[in-house]
Amino acid sequence: MKFSIERAALVKAVAQAQSVVERRNTIPILANVLIEAVPDSVSFRATDLDTEIVDKAAAHVERPGATTVNAQMLHEIVRKLPDGALVNLTLDGANGRLGVQAGKSSFSLATLPREDFPVMASSEYTANFSANAAVLRRLFDKAKFAISNEETRYYLNGVYMHVATGEDGAVLRCVATDGHRLARIDAALPEGAADMPGVIVPRKTVAELRKLLDEDDAAIAVSVSETKIRFATPTITLTSKVIDGTFPDYTRVIPTANSRRLEVDAADFARAVDRVATVSSERSRAVKLSLDEDRLILSVNAPDAGAAEEELAVAYSDEPLEIGFNAKYLQEIASQVDRENAVFLFNGSGDPTLMREGGDTSAVYVVMPMRV
Amino acid sequence: MKFSIERAALVKAVAQAQSVVERRNTIPILANVLIEAVPDSVSFRATDLDTEIVDKAAAHVERPGATTVNAQMLHEIVRKLPDGALVNLTLDGANGRLGVQAGKSSFSLATLPREDFPVMASSEYTANFSANAAVLRRLFDKAKFAISNEETRYYLNGVYMHVATGEDGAVLRCVATDGHRLARIDAALPEGAADMPGVIVPRKTVAELRKLLDEDDAAIAVSVSETKIRFATPTITLTSKVIDGTFPDYTRVIPTANSRRLEVDAADFARAVDRVATVSSERSRAVKLSLDEDRLILSVNAPDAGAAEEELAVAYSDEPLEIGFNAKYLQEIASQVDRENAVFLFNGSGDPTLMREGGDTSAVYVVMPMRV
Repeated sequence: MKFSIERAALVKAVAQAQSVVERRNTIPILANVLIEAVPDSVSFRATDLDTEIVDKAAAHVERPGATTVNAQMLHEIVRKLPDGALVNLTLDGANGRLGVQAGKSSFSLATLPREDFPVMASSEYTANFSANAAVLRRLFDKAKFAISNEETRYYLNGVYMHVATGEDGAVLRCVATDGHRLARIDAALPEGAADMPGVIVPRKTVAELRKLLDEDDAAIAVSVSETKIRFATPTITLTSKVIDGTFPDYTRVIPTANSRRLEVDAADFARAVDRVATVSSERSRAVKLSLDEDRLILSVNAPDAGAAEEELAVAYSDEPLEIGFNAKYLQEIASQVDRENAVFLFNGSGDPTLMREGGDTSAVYVVMPMRV
Repeated sequence: MKFSIERAALVKAVAQAQSVVERRNTIPILANVLIEAVPDSVSFRATDLDTEIVDKAAAHVERPGATTVNAQMLHEIVRKLPDGALVNLTLDGANGRLGVQAGKSSFSLATLPREDFPVMASSEYTANFSANAAVLRRLFDKAKFAISNEETRYYLNGVYMHVATGEDGAVLRCVATDGHRLARIDAALPEGAADMPGVIVPRKTVAELRKLLDEDDAAIAVSVSETKIRFATPTITLTSKVIDGTFPDYTRVIPTANSRRLEVDAADFARAVDRVATVSSERSRAVKLSLDEDRLILSVNAPDAGAAEEELAVAYSDEPLEIGFNAKYLQEIASQVDRENAVFLFNGSGDPTLMREGGDTSAVYVVMPMRV
């Protein structure tokens, strides 16, 4: 194998690939990136056995071939090479080392045989469709904060992507919940997605996917089977196992009859919650909301440290209500609001509360109250 | 106590003070800041019993008085208040709480009595002099990287500031070393400093002092005794115990007869060291320097991971030499060079090496080689 490639293209491809590699590996080959050179292009493949990413970059290939080297080390080396450098990579068959040379720098890296690298088996996909990068970004970005971290509830450790029935027919829907809060985000159903099985996309894949979605107008090819999901741009392919479990019936926890309506500027609200929460102890960051005619008082009472109170002008015309929430949860859902005011719909002080953005029902959030 | 103060002035004063407070305190009062309001100004005092900082800010004082509150919490609160807010602080004698109010936010914070706050005793200082902020900054900034972290060699856990004899007479000198490398920085002796006892300024004080030295032309009042040192601007006073120990005779380890002279661009050199060190294992980051007529080859050989080599064009006209160093040490001393080329003076491959900036002898560095 022998090829030369622009430093910038190499950095980009290797950076993307090495981010999938787990830092602590007991299996040495999993710390490596598989480099495969074919005429005119080179691909960089990395995996943690659950997720696999393949990055393709244009290169001047003199001699096709393949090998694997430590992903993090290769990334560090190419990152440190000067801007604009042309990098030559050559596999030395005699000593099994990969030579990396640019300008007056040269490196010779230990390799492991390409045959040992676990390439993820290709699947038959049930559904193949194309989705706009901006649409996928919104679906996952707005849902991911609610992903559970509890390993015992492994079926909540991801975003449940599935086809559902929205107010105006079938939608592509992403849901995440950790039992304390829930996000449900809808988008128009892409053509060809109707037969898609519902899949739980793991947290790590959601994070890796994000890097494919930077260009608003890019078309992302999505392929889904019962066990795997694949997202592809012309140069990057991300394949991931999906979580083997059943996502709970979330519809039961989304309140439909909450009628007490509070409308508030989301940014003002988040800042006020942040301020009053300062006095609360780390563990139970409970904030009390006291609602009265067009007035919201946020308060925290931490006997040891002190107390805090802040008043906000809001739109509220229902009966007075007192209800408590975890401050972090309130801030997180308020930060999902980006266009209009946050609209909260309450029932009683012990009941789940609904939040959405103005009148838009394509993204709704549920948060459980806590006793204050 | 009752006063009002601009948020910006309050943030600045409290931020400065709370940085002295240790995060983990077994003595509750040490987590607090002592607020003392006198007509027209308020001071904020914090201590860890070794270091004390007092920040003074202009305020509209309605009722003088004093109390103590948790420094970190007060800092968090004022930091989160909106820009431009006027903050009212009121001590409620009845419940012993400090009220903090701005706009529609109000806080009531637990206090501890001012009498319990350990104010550092004033000392008689042996020497009092004034030094330019830029001069002090250079003395400490260039020396501090060499401070030892080994607690057993506590007398190396700071910068040794003392009066010494330089090439052109008496100088104010800062020295730090950890046994592997050493920095010796000189400045013109300020008027009134000649009688100063040599003191070891602890690492933490060096870090806190840095925040007083941002304005180049500011005059810093320095007071030194056998046991304490004080740095003061018109608004901030930093007082610190000095390390009770004897700094070793560093002059013995500074080579005077090294004659093999290498001159190299410091930034190019640091980047090349960084690149070749990438392949070395975390623990022993040894880089080999091979010198020949106007040529330097940097190389690293890590049997498991691979090898790296880089050639640099340099000025060198002595006999060929091979010598090894810890990569981190080389990078750190190279990064001290800011105007001219780095000049290295070698003796043998087992002897300490000297580094300085061009022909400037007011800052010299020594680094011990390692076997490669």
